[in-house]
Amino acid sequence: MISQTAEYALRAIVFLADNAGEAHTTEEIARATKVPVGYLAKIMQGLSRSRLVNSQRGLHGGFTLVRQPSDLTIYDVVQAVDPIMRIDRCPLQLEGHGEELCPLHRTMDKAMGHVEELFRSTTIDRMINAPGANRPLCSFPRNPG
Amino acid sequence: MISQTAEYALRAIVFLADNAGEAHTTEEIARATKVPVGYLAKIMQGLSRSRLVNSQRGLHGGFTLVRQPSDLTIYDVVQAVDPIMRIDRCPLQLEGHGEELCPLHRTMDKAMGHVEELFRSTTIDRMINAPGANRPLCSFPRNPG
Repeated sequence: MISQTAEYALRAIVFLADNAGEAHTTEEIARATKVPVGYLAKIMQGLSRSRLVNSQRGLHGGFTLVRQPSDLTIYDVVQAVDPIMRIDRCPLQLEGHGEELCPLHRTMDKAMGHVEELFRSTTIDRMINAPGANRPLCSFPRNPG
Repeated sequence: MISQTAEYALRAIVFLADNAGEAHTTEEIARATKVPVGYLAKIMQGLSRSRLVNSQRGLHGGFTLVRQPSDLTIYDVVQAVDPIMRIDRCPLQLEGHGEELCPLHRTMDKAMGHVEELFRSTTIDRMINAPGANRPLCSFPRNPG
């Protein structure tokens, strides 16, 4: 349901949020998030195109978050790399159905609506600063390598 | 989010439910559901292996539903062809995290839980016999061809 691309992008964003203050290279992020470096490089390009991360060249170059983690949601990240597509018209393009969905596609769209709502309401900040004893359970090692 | 395979399988099942009483060939289902016939043939094999459809050979052969539409949910169909995978342990296999999920993977799993719940509670019968003026909006032509 949630694609590997989206999952990997979220890991990278959580890593950058949890290790703010300096830029991180693709290799560094890949190591910390356990994502294949070639795959991650493409994902970072997508995040950069969508203006979720800044890319700086040079000796201390690498990626940083553009927005504060409190101003960035799971939805923003997922939409940047592998968008949740809502159904707004009959996918079978049946004549006369137009924008009115049948019960099947209404239910499919409702499922995606539930996911969208959850993702829109969850900030990256909540991922790295979740209250409770478990925090931060799957946080990545700080300053890895 | 919902794969094309799952969507196509659901169309086929809805067609069989809506056109019960006789068997339907792959070609017939493909035409009515607008699914490429080769792709559909593989999906029908999956549905058959999962014992959701019966396959009969011969002159009046084809596929029929094994269960009543009121006893068959969207979840059953999706799980047969492209299962919703819940997250029950850290996908990064981080040491010491074991079965306790971090906030990121808790949220991912929660999203899939929402979808699972909706799909488990929605029968195929409700797809073809939904109350209201829209019924059956995207129903497929009966006895096509």
